[in-house]
Amino acid sequence: MIAAERSWWGWGTTDRALPDDECAALAAMIPGLPDRPRPVPRVADLELPAPRVGPPSTLPLTTDPADRAAHTYGKAYRDVVRALSGDLRGAPDAVAHPATEDDVVRLLDWAASAGTVVVPFGGGSSVVGGVEYRGDRPWVSMDLTGLDRVLEIDPVSRAARIQGGALGPVLEAQLRPHGLTLRHFPQSFEFSTLGGWLATRAGGHYATLHTHIDDLVESMRVVTPIGVSESWRLPGSGAGPSPDRLFLGSEGTLGVITEAWMRLQDRPRSKASASVTFADMTAATAAVRAIAQSGLHPANCRLLDPGEAAMSGASAGSPVLVLGVESAVHPVESRLAELTALAQDAGGTVEEGSRGSAADTWRSAFLRMPYVRDGMARMSAVVETFETACTWDRAEELYATVRAEVGAAVREVTGADGLVNCRFTHVYPDGPAPYFTVIAAGRPGSEVAMWDEVKTASTEVLGRLRATITHHHAVGRDHRPGYDRQRPEPFAVALRAAKAALDPAEVLNPGVLVGPV
Amino acid sequence: MIAAERSWWGWGTTDRALPDDECAALAAMIPGLPDRPRPVPRVADLELPAPRVGPPSTLPLTTDPADRAAHTYGKAYRDVVRALSGDLRGAPDAVAHPATEDDVVRLLDWAASAGTVVVPFGGGSSVVGGVEYRGDRPWVSMDLTGLDRVLEIDPVSRAARIQGGALGPVLEAQLRPHGLTLRHFPQSFEFSTLGGWLATRAGGHYATLHTHIDDLVESMRVVTPIGVSESWRLPGSGAGPSPDRLFLGSEGTLGVITEAWMRLQDRPRSKASASVTFADMTAATAAVRAIAQSGLHPANCRLLDPGEAAMSGASAGSPVLVLGVESAVHPVESRLAELTALAQDAGGTVEEGSRGSAADTWRSAFLRMPYVRDGMARMSAVVETFETACTWDRAEELYATVRAEVGAAVREVTGADGLVNCRFTHVYPDGPAPYFTVIAAGRPGSEVAMWDEVKTASTEVLGRLRATITHHHAVGRDHRPGYDRQRPEPFAVALRAAKAALDPAEVLNPGVLVGPV
Repeated sequence: MIAAERSWWGWGTTDRALPDDECAALAAMIPGLPDRPRPVPRVADLELPAPRVGPPSTLPLTTDPADRAAHTYGKAYRDVVRALSGDLRGAPDAVAHPATEDDVVRLLDWAASAGTVVVPFGGGSSVVGGVEYRGDRPWVSMDLTGLDRVLEIDPVSRAARIQGGALGPVLEAQLRPHGLTLRHFPQSFEFSTLGGWLATRAGGHYATLHTHIDDLVESMRVVTPIGVSESWRLPGSGAGPSPDRLFLGSEGTLGVITEAWMRLQDRPRSKASASVTFADMTAATAAVRAIAQSGLHPANCRLLDPGEAAMSGASAGSPVLVLGVESAVHPVESRLAELTALAQDAGGTVEEGSRGSAADTWRSAFLRMPYVRDGMARMSAVVETFETACTWDRAEELYATVRAEVGAAVREVTGADGLVNCRFTHVYPDGPAPYFTVIAAGRPGSEVAMWDEVKTASTEVLGRLRATITHHHAVGRDHRPGYDRQRPEPFAVALRAAKAALDPAEVLNPGVLVGPV
Repeated sequence: MIAAERSWWGWGTTDRALPDDECAALAAMIPGLPDRPRPVPRVADLELPAPRVGPPSTLPLTTDPADRAAHTYGKAYRDVVRALSGDLRGAPDAVAHPATEDDVVRLLDWAASAGTVVVPFGGGSSVVGGVEYRGDRPWVSMDLTGLDRVLEIDPVSRAARIQGGALGPVLEAQLRPHGLTLRHFPQSFEFSTLGGWLATRAGGHYATLHTHIDDLVESMRVVTPIGVSESWRLPGSGAGPSPDRLFLGSEGTLGVITEAWMRLQDRPRSKASASVTFADMTAATAAVRAIAQSGLHPANCRLLDPGEAAMSGASAGSPVLVLGVESAVHPVESRLAELTALAQDAGGTVEEGSRGSAADTWRSAFLRMPYVRDGMARMSAVVETFETACTWDRAEELYATVRAEVGAAVREVTGADGLVNCRFTHVYPDGPAPYFTVIAAGRPGSEVAMWDEVKTASTEVLGRLRATITHHHAVGRDHRPGYDRQRPEPFAVALRAAKAALDPAEVLNPGVLVGPV
């Protein structure tokens, strides 16, 4: 029972949350923080507002306080801080647990007639305010993890029909006996669902080529308030604008994704990895660009800047490039050699003994990061991560400008220097996807306000440089100012028209993508 | 002056049309056809309807008869036959030749106020009725080839800002001095434009991976009737549903694509190819599937069935697989060896002496095909090509069923057997894109009616097997019955709403994708 172990206030499972002494030890590295972590409140001690919905008893709805608390927020820093401070004023009036697609249909019908808002909730790992509701209407969080089965497997085409509520490990466990894998491993893998990945255009395992879940979709089944949309299983098509691409990234505003046929991989038989260090980010960036433009498509290609490399222990302060190759068919050592040769041509030094271990080392640190973030939040550190993408011609300017301006915002807000680290999580022939981590000393009680100011600064600089407000974290509510600036106005008109046509009663996730936040 | 040499009635340029004796020699292979080709009428001898539009003289519009004749139809078989029979009743009332984006804006404004229809026209190579108009309103064909410049090149990110009206050779000529290439080579390459490729989701050079032009788009600029939509240049993004993906495949119904930033390639330094024969289509299909699922991504991977291979001279009647690899960076011979090894494992025989020549031989035959089609049309043969895609689990059934049912339709319509050949033009990990060619003896004067019956049969069988109505030829007007069956209804509702919001006066290409044909 994964649900029983889940943290209601923070990331993941309660057994992996940092103990108090580790929180304090981490915070000791940042001057100005308290010496003890803020306690975690008990849900029973918190006053949830009285539920305003009285749904027919035939619907799978609950008003259980612990369930409502666990569905109040996503897992952004500001969500964790609000939960830790006991602020559950915005809790859903009820939580829905559909077990079938028909339950989803009936819940949406009921919500439309009752004037109730529905916010689809997969694993609840949104870090952009995508699964809360900030308006005044009664609202229901629709937890889809009851729809968690792999319904059908086509081993010839290597594809499976999977329900939208299947968490990463749940769906992989059902694919494993067939020797197949989706191989979509976002940082949230354990605590996010297929439907959530599709609704938010999640970024996954592959650093090149199939970076987003979008490319792994064969067809989708979506319950909209006016009916079920089901596209045909097709490996490719040119018949009009892609129906799937309208629902990919729709973030629960146009419909609830109940099923998808997904493209699978054979389980890789061979893997190889290496790490390469560089004198500076200019050389490292040139190397990554050469690799991204080579057509070699490494599975892993993560560049850590000096701060990021130092923090993760990957180097003493040089930029580090982690390369990984994998295949179920062809030899990988020769591919890795071609890749490291390109990195060396650009001035890189292949680390002795790094082959085979660098990717694994990186992965375990990667999965632990959100727990560390929560521990820091308990110590009143302000922690923000934001990610973007831009073309190579602007990559160095973006890196420098973001670090300068967000760094200045941190000083302005906190009165002290903070860390602004960066890594490239995904790379394309025409540009990288830089991912920034900001860590600074906050003041107890002011963390959310301070975070909001840092967020405003990062949104402003990304918008000015015309770098996307999000590469794979989605828009939610927190990114609306940046998204509204980025999105072409005629497309906004078209999207609002599509939304009004599919969801005339404005049931689905109001405030996300369109309409007032 | 490419325009001066273009055929008004048939494919491409007049100097490459088949001479009368070649037409007759081709037709002699099919019993029951006339012994002389139908003559090509002169435009001056044809009666075009009087133009119904009297636009302000400040707009770049012409009512020149030759221009109107050349913009009456696309280049489908039924278009060629109608033109040859002198049927120009549906000619546009005028042809617009915008030289700037501002001209496009002014033309759309005028059309909205005058109640005139505008059909965007790139190279005019549509084979699906995408550039004609079948309604009763006055209409203008908007020829965009005046917007043909490469405006900006970013060699670092390998991208260029290119105007929508640039024909393939026109844009490649401007990229060549920079050592860069778009490398999008549809069969229509010489006679189609970037904007047309984007509007129809064209299929290009690459048989795997970046099969559609969609994947090469960094950003687009589209003039809609309510304003200009411009997306940001981004290598990747997860900010809401992709704005570009709404306009990709919109076939001139939502706006006019005036510019796009396109991802480019370095010119390949090495290429290698080989051809492999198989005992039967079952073995050949298994080999192609293994290759498509290998992660090796050959640039060329075209499987010709026995009929197709015999007709093109590639074999005496065995299925032939043409493989090609290319790179600007890494060695290709080892890649080709990996690919041919997979084909051999599946029972294939690598043809001695085929390396290095197979792809070129195929390409020159490929580019000549439409001229042959026109020569056959002049001999009253009925020629149809249609293409689709489906998953591997249904590929053999689709191949057999289409050949049986379309073959039966040909017999029913023409009273004799015809050819129904097939090749796989593009392949994906989860399925192939089969392309069928039908050749049968028609009766002079009944060719269009006979073609329509064959088309109805192919549309029916593809729809029943849930194979896409088009992989890369687009929907236009001819594919509307299949498209309406395939498209999920809630998506149709959303698309109609988007269309109504962007084009409230219904100016743009009515009958394509939405609304009555």
